[in-house]
Amino acid sequence: MTIKVFLAEEEIPRQWYNLAADLPTPLQPPLGPDGNPVGPEMLAPVFPMNLIEQEVSQERWIDIPDGVLELLYRWRPSPLHRAVHLEQALNTPAKIYYKNESISPAGSHKPNTAVAQAWYNKEFGIKKLTTETGAGQWGSALSFACSLIGLECKVFMVRISFDQKPMRKLMMQAWGGHCVASPSEETAAGREILAKHPDTPGSLGIAISEAVEQAVSDESGETRYSLGSVLNHVMLHQTIIGLEAKKQLAKIGESKVDVVIGCAGGGSNFAGLAFPFINDKINGAQIEVIPVEPTSCPTMTRAPFAYDHGDVANMTPLLPMHTLGHQFIPPPIHAGGLRYHGMAPLVSQTIVEGLCAPRAIHQVECYEAALTFAKTEGIIAAPETSHAIAAAIQEADKAREEGKEKTILFNLSGHGLMDLNGYQLYFNNALTDYALPEEEIQKSLDTIKNYPQPSVAKTGKW
Amino acid sequence: MTIKVFLAEEEIPRQWYNLAADLPTPLQPPLGPDGNPVGPEMLAPVFPMNLIEQEVSQERWIDIPDGVLELLYRWRPSPLHRAVHLEQALNTPAKIYYKNESISPAGSHKPNTAVAQAWYNKEFGIKKLTTETGAGQWGSALSFACSLIGLECKVFMVRISFDQKPMRKLMMQAWGGHCVASPSEETAAGREILAKHPDTPGSLGIAISEAVEQAVSDESGETRYSLGSVLNHVMLHQTIIGLEAKKQLAKIGESKVDVVIGCAGGGSNFAGLAFPFINDKINGAQIEVIPVEPTSCPTMTRAPFAYDHGDVANMTPLLPMHTLGHQFIPPPIHAGGLRYHGMAPLVSQTIVEGLCAPRAIHQVECYEAALTFAKTEGIIAAPETSHAIAAAIQEADKAREEGKEKTILFNLSGHGLMDLNGYQLYFNNALTDYALPEEEIQKSLDTIKNYPQPSVAKTGKW
Repeated sequence: MTIKVFLAEEEIPRQWYNLAADLPTPLQPPLGPDGNPVGPEMLAPVFPMNLIEQEVSQERWIDIPDGVLELLYRWRPSPLHRAVHLEQALNTPAKIYYKNESISPAGSHKPNTAVAQAWYNKEFGIKKLTTETGAGQWGSALSFACSLIGLECKVFMVRISFDQKPMRKLMMQAWGGHCVASPSEETAAGREILAKHPDTPGSLGIAISEAVEQAVSDESGETRYSLGSVLNHVMLHQTIIGLEAKKQLAKIGESKVDVVIGCAGGGSNFAGLAFPFINDKINGAQIEVIPVEPTSCPTMTRAPFAYDHGDVANMTPLLPMHTLGHQFIPPPIHAGGLRYHGMAPLVSQTIVEGLCAPRAIHQVECYEAALTFAKTEGIIAAPETSHAIAAAIQEADKAREEGKEKTILFNLSGHGLMDLNGYQLYFNNALTDYALPEEEIQKSLDTIKNYPQPSVAKTGKW
Repeated sequence: MTIKVFLAEEEIPRQWYNLAADLPTPLQPPLGPDGNPVGPEMLAPVFPMNLIEQEVSQERWIDIPDGVLELLYRWRPSPLHRAVHLEQALNTPAKIYYKNESISPAGSHKPNTAVAQAWYNKEFGIKKLTTETGAGQWGSALSFACSLIGLECKVFMVRISFDQKPMRKLMMQAWGGHCVASPSEETAAGREILAKHPDTPGSLGIAISEAVEQAVSDESGETRYSLGSVLNHVMLHQTIIGLEAKKQLAKIGESKVDVVIGCAGGGSNFAGLAFPFINDKINGAQIEVIPVEPTSCPTMTRAPFAYDHGDVANMTPLLPMHTLGHQFIPPPIHAGGLRYHGMAPLVSQTIVEGLCAPRAIHQVECYEAALTFAKTEGIIAAPETSHAIAAAIQEADKAREEGKEKTILFNLSGHGLMDLNGYQLYFNNALTDYALPEEEIQKSLDTIKNYPQPSVAKTGKW
């Protein structure tokens, strides 16, 4: 039995898939402070025009430039694994496959878009990228990408993570990235916060403000900002995951996938695996598509589809998305990458249109699933990824109970070797989930209740 | 241009290569305390008989059991990369290839023998394995292997590493391994040391003593001991690295390798890549084979070929090897896996017979090489692996100076994500190498000067 399927370099997909071209209702535009749509030219100080074109593109297939393919070849195509040993342990009639994104040098799927963004910026004549990072996955991935292509990289890392995760900082430094704790003295936004709250632990919202400010205020015009999730062009770059998976499944004669699963914080690894399968679904295939989030940050399962800012400080345009309100502060679960108040507009719209069925899972169940996976399949997963594993196990259990053969595919978005602290708490029985009172969600949502409302028809077709 | 070469699962080598069958002078036997050869039966309380048979085998090719292949398929065959970006940065006419062992779930080549040893022990009816670990690579790999196959795993971890590397302990725990600090209260050897030196940082020698004692004193007979390097059967299991590399090079029409490089502490990753090429060399091919060690632990480049114990406490038989004397305590360089006083007997004999040409490199040069590699090829290497990279860069530089095209192959034995502290010291200019006075080496060698002398003819043929 084949346990692992590789593709040769020449079999790598040559185009990304753009779900925006196939959405039953067109994607709603981002809105400016005046409530009017934000045109491409307004984004020009923040992103290079070639990426802005991708952001608003309605083309179904977008060619992957040779220069980007060469960067992806460092670790792609990634292997597709059959989880035979997990199947045996669960005694399930289901077949379980997973796409192994943990083998990238940065340890996750993030480099897929990092190298593409770095390449397009370089093409556009940009010399330096700024970004923010929370737990450090994205800052590492962008440092890696900038290093390979020869761009300067500046990462504003949330202070509490900067202090707690010195190894992440060293990874960035090894790749030539320059990582500073945020808030910093380098920006007006940072100085303002530090003056008021010298001991602040920082936040992703503040770090975004600093990174954007530093990009747009570089008078040489040679600096731009880079974001690791949420935006349409990020989802686009990640679709190589699902496109490779389809080729790999075809290679071993697996003609039909029944369930596709990914964890979702900003949405990029989920979108990357799932969008090519949602394309099949739009074209008539019967596929259950499940984005998985923590119960303690229930963006998709308990929050409305609304216009909201992407950051805490209202620096970004209003985006149409499932959102808990930009002032929502998620409990300190260990899956740092899933602690985001919103969800990518493209992913959000697939939920509204019934193309996928989100699910929330408690932190403790996720760690249990990750340990079952480590002991059977041998890979120690990232805390974020454990949510996808937990849902896959739920589906495999259901298949056993129903006595149904089915084929489950999930995205192993990253390894957990840099984030083992949560495992330690689990071993010490010190890990809990967090109950989230409805009032708390409502309070946060109240802050955006007067914002414009996006209109997307629920077709009820899927 | 092909950057990365995969093999499909069905292309994996089906046999290991045993260099012992081809050595010009037969391998010298291990000796007991009485100076007489140690027969297989004397090793039976320590290792299962099926592995002892491999240890003394003179068969050139040994079948890899299907059960072991199934375990290897979790991450193998590993990719072979062409380091085109490193070549460009060095402006060298040389082609540089590397075998990427860093993509295993434990992050190094160690699982190659861990899964084989676990499988043979299980076949033999063993229920539990004990071992020691220094920095934690081997303890992690054996925990991983035992978890996959359903064996109990007990790891004695040198106390100072146990305290300094809590993440390694968590990796073992995630795979169900039971890791205790050594010396421990669990063994007579441990208790004796603790009574005398309650604050001892521990040592690999003590940890070996504890692991062996716990294995041989289990009256059920269901426990054995496992070693991650030095022994013949460990070298054997690692040859899958070089055998895969040969198939991969053939696949892209690369008919001739000129230089083969690996770092060497106990010798296993070097042997794994190099032995199949040394086979070619014995059969007439012109290949330069370079095992690389730290200048601060110069086993191969400054120490004699002599009979010595493998451990500090004289628990093991006398092995014929390049050795600095078993009381030699290497300086605290960051490549923990290269801090060993001896060298595998098989590797040692290839040096005596002129089949390979060892080289010592300073720690600082190695970190510089690793950073050049991280910024061009994108992978952050383990401190041990940096020695192989440094030698590959030396060879590529030489090729440029001589204006010669040549093909260099090295083993990327592991990633450095769990061992970034050395990088931090390098960034802070706080990293030094250690001068090693000849007197210090002589003092250590004096302790073994009355041991029996191995006799191996230097043929001078290579």
